[in-house]
Amino acid sequence: MDERIVRIAELEIVPALLSEYLVFLREEITASVEREEGVLMLHAVSEQAAPNRIRLLEVYASQAAYEAHIKTPHFLKYKQGTLHMVTSLRLIDVDPVLFAAR
Amino acid sequence: MDERIVRIAELEIVPALLSEYLVFLREEITASVEREEGVLMLHAVSEQAAPNRIRLLEVYASQAAYEAHIKTPHFLKYKQGTLHMVTSLRLIDVDPVLFAAR
Repeated sequence: MDERIVRIAELEIVPALLSEYLVFLREEITASVEREEGVLMLHAVSEQAAPNRIRLLEVYASQAAYEAHIKTPHFLKYKQGTLHMVTSLRLIDVDPVLFAAR
Repeated sequence: MDERIVRIAELEIVPALLSEYLVFLREEITASVEREEGVLMLHAVSEQAAPNRIRLLEVYASQAAYEAHIKTPHFLKYKQGTLHMVTSLRLIDVDPVLFAAR
């Protein structure tokens, strides 16, 4: 059975704080995928027409892996450090159809 | 310079045709990533709350790779075969912030 947790996050960032936000986000993504076996994928993009709109595709190995992730020091640093930068956060639970990459 | 073309596609599918649509989509994704060097990533998910809402994260090596992709027999088969199944298609040009996976 596929235990993976797959999610899309849609965020809006205060435009004047975007570059500072991206430093936090990149550090959090890098640390999570390097240090946590249960964080399988974190892909982040920004909309060209509105770069302060950020979208993430997140894949965790299991619900337990996700719950461990949100307690890590690097996630908490990101979350607490960016709270005042994020004006909107929408989380969308999704199921994988197919992931393919070369 | 990063020549990659990165895009999100948001589709709505006629619910009664969803399983048939997914057969076309999976075949198209598999063929594209296997046969085209310029198709770097095609990740497809469906929303749990509305499985007929499909989202794709697409990465092409360049604009030329994208233009070649939409002329391939496997893409045209998908496009023509699913036209009547797709009620809404939104394409969002995005820039990569960071892609990380293990």
